[in-house]
Amino acid sequence: MTSPKAREEAVLEAVRKRRERVNEAIPEELPIQRPERLYEASRYLLDAGGKRLRPTVLLTTAEALADVDPLATDYRSFPTLDGANGRIHGGDPIDVMNAAVSVEVIQSFTLIHDDIMDDDDLRRGVPAVHREYDLETAILAGDTLYSKAFEIMLQTGAKPSRTVGALEILATTCTKICEGQSLDVTFEERENVSPEEYLEMVEQKTAVLYAASACLPAVLMGADDETADALYGYGLDIGRAFQIQDDVLDLTVPSEKLGKQRGSDLVENKQTLITVHARNQGVDVGSLVDTTDVDSVTEAEIDDAVAALEETGSIDYANGMARDLVEQGKDRLEVVPDNEARDLLFEIGDYLIERGY
Amino acid sequence: MTSPKAREEAVLEAVRKRRERVNEAIPEELPIQRPERLYEASRYLLDAGGKRLRPTVLLTTAEALADVDPLATDYRSFPTLDGANGRIHGGDPIDVMNAAVSVEVIQSFTLIHDDIMDDDDLRRGVPAVHREYDLETAILAGDTLYSKAFEIMLQTGAKPSRTVGALEILATTCTKICEGQSLDVTFEERENVSPEEYLEMVEQKTAVLYAASACLPAVLMGADDETADALYGYGLDIGRAFQIQDDVLDLTVPSEKLGKQRGSDLVENKQTLITVHARNQGVDVGSLVDTTDVDSVTEAEIDDAVAALEETGSIDYANGMARDLVEQGKDRLEVVPDNEARDLLFEIGDYLIERGY
Repeated sequence: MTSPKAREEAVLEAVRKRRERVNEAIPEELPIQRPERLYEASRYLLDAGGKRLRPTVLLTTAEALADVDPLATDYRSFPTLDGANGRIHGGDPIDVMNAAVSVEVIQSFTLIHDDIMDDDDLRRGVPAVHREYDLETAILAGDTLYSKAFEIMLQTGAKPSRTVGALEILATTCTKICEGQSLDVTFEERENVSPEEYLEMVEQKTAVLYAASACLPAVLMGADDETADALYGYGLDIGRAFQIQDDVLDLTVPSEKLGKQRGSDLVENKQTLITVHARNQGVDVGSLVDTTDVDSVTEAEIDDAVAALEETGSIDYANGMARDLVEQGKDRLEVVPDNEARDLLFEIGDYLIERGY
Repeated sequence: MTSPKAREEAVLEAVRKRRERVNEAIPEELPIQRPERLYEASRYLLDAGGKRLRPTVLLTTAEALADVDPLATDYRSFPTLDGANGRIHGGDPIDVMNAAVSVEVIQSFTLIHDDIMDDDDLRRGVPAVHREYDLETAILAGDTLYSKAFEIMLQTGAKPSRTVGALEILATTCTKICEGQSLDVTFEERENVSPEEYLEMVEQKTAVLYAASACLPAVLMGADDETADALYGYGLDIGRAFQIQDDVLDLTVPSEKLGKQRGSDLVENKQTLITVHARNQGVDVGSLVDTTDVDSVTEAEIDDAVAALEETGSIDYANGMARDLVEQGKDRLEVVPDNEARDLLFEIGDYLIERGY
C-alpha cells in the first residue's frame, strides 16, 4: 500500500501526461476557422484549462483493454481487439484520441450552457463564455461543440458497426445529461428531495459521461459486452463519487483554488447530497446562508454553514457515500486484464474522492 | 402545364398527407417522459404546427429513389437499393420515417435556440419556448432535441456503414447551421454585406438542412454517390430559394398570417438579399424603419419601407434569384428515376417560391 499522498502524486503525474496529449489534440480536432469568433468562443473554456479527467479515464481504459504499457502506444493508431474473448489484437488500428477529445468537447459544451442556465460568472478562474462573449455566442458555441463532438467521434477509423455503437452511447449520454440538468433545476425549488432522487440526478447529469468515457474504448475496440457493461458501471460509480466530492469541495476549498466563490451551491440553493442529508436531520438548509447572491456572501457565513453541516454529520455522510461508490466501481474492473493501466483506473477512482480540488 | 394555382393545391395536398404521417410519428419517436417539463418544452414547437417541408422533401426523395408510387409504401418499412446502378430493391427494409423525424427535430432545436438569440416572442403563432417556459428550459429543450435527433437517426435499421454516412451528414449539417447563424448575427452589425456573402450565410443557416433532407434517403438506402450528390445540390438550391422567399414574405404577408410581426427583419436590422440589393442601389436601409422595437412599429411604416424596396427593384431581384435557384435545383434531379415522386420534387421547388406564406 502506498500512502494517499504518494498515490495522489502518481495519479496526478499520469493524468498530467495524458492531459498534455489531449491538449495537443484539441486544436487539431477543433481548429479555429471561419467564423473565427464562433470557434474562439467554442475553444475558450477548453483552452482555459481543466484536468481532462474524462479523457484520461477513456485513454487509460483503452490501455487496460489492449493490455499495453501506459503511455507507450500512439493513441492515434491504437490496437483493437478480436477473437472469441475479445482480448487479442486484430484488425486495423483506431484513433482513440478522437474519442477522448469528443468526450471532453461534450463536457465543455455542457459547461457553457450550464453557466448560462445558472447565470454563473466564473469558470476555471476565467469569465464564463456568456460573460466573456455574450449570450447568443455562448449558446451557439455550445451548439457547435455539440455537433463537433459527433463529427470527431465519427473519425476514429473504427468499423462502422462499432462506430454506430459509440454514437449511440454518445447520443444517449447527451440526452441523459440534459435530463439530469433539468432535474437539478427542478430540485432547486423542492424541499423534499430524497438521497435516491439526488443520486439519480447526479447519475444523469454527471456520471453518465464518466460511464461513456470508460465504456467507449470497449465498444470502439471490439471488447465483449460483459466488459463494456462492467466499464460502464465503473464509470457510473466513480462519476457519482466525483460529483458528490465536488459538492463537498464547493464547501471546503478556498475560492481562489476553486476558481469560483466557495459555498456557491448553498447560496444558490442547489441541492447536494450534503443538503439533502442535513434536511433529513431537521436542518433548515434554506436559512444556512441569508443571501442568494454569490457576490455578497461573506466567508464567515460560509464557515458557519459548513460547521452546521459538519455537526449533523452531513459532510461525513457524503464522504462515506463517495467512498462506497468508488469501492463498488473498482470491484467491477475484475473483468479487465490485470495490468498497470487497470491499476491506474483503480487509483483514478481513489483520486476522485481524495483530491484537494 | 397545370396552372400555378392547381399546382400549388396539388403540392399542398401531397405535403398535407405526408405531414399527417410525420405528425403521427413525432410523439412515437419523442414521447413525453420524465422529466415531463423538459419533454413538454421540447415538443412545444413541434406540436404547435409547421409545414414539415423538410420531412416531406426527405420522404418524397425516398419514394423517387425507390421508384414507388407516392404514399403507397410504409415509410417505416421502406425498400433499399442494391446492384451496380443502385436502383434495384434489395436488402432489409429501413425506417425512412425516422430520418424524416430526425431532420424535423433538428429544425425545431434550431428554432428554439434562434428565438432566444433573436429574443423573438412569437413563433408559429404561439409564444417562443423561452417565453412560454423560461430561458433555462428553452436552452435545455433545444439541447435535448439535438441528441434525440441523433438517437432517432440511429434507429433506421440501415446497414452500419450507411448509418455512419447519415450521421456524418447530420453532424456536419448541424455544425454548418451554427456557422450560418453566427454569420447572420455578425451581419447585423455590418453595412457592406455582398450578395455572395449573404447567399453563403443562407446556404449554411438554412439550405444545408434541405440538402441533408434530400440526400439522406440516398445514403441510407444505398444509392450511388452521383445520385446522393445531385440530391444534396437540389436541396441546397431549393433551400436557398426557400430562405430568400421567406425574406420576401416577411415584408409582404400580413402579420396574422405570418404568426409574427410583418417586417420584423427590417426592424431588427437583419440582412436579407433584399436589403443587400437595396443598399447597393444607394438606399439607406437602416433608416427605412425608425424603431428597432417590433412591438412599436406601425403598418404604415412597413408599407413605406416596402414601397421603397419595390422602387429599387430589390424585391424583384430577390424573387428572380429564388426562381433561378429553383430551376437549377430541378435540373439536378435528372439522375433520379422519372416518376410521380420526382415530379412532386419539382413541384415542391416551385411551391417554395410561389407559396403565399
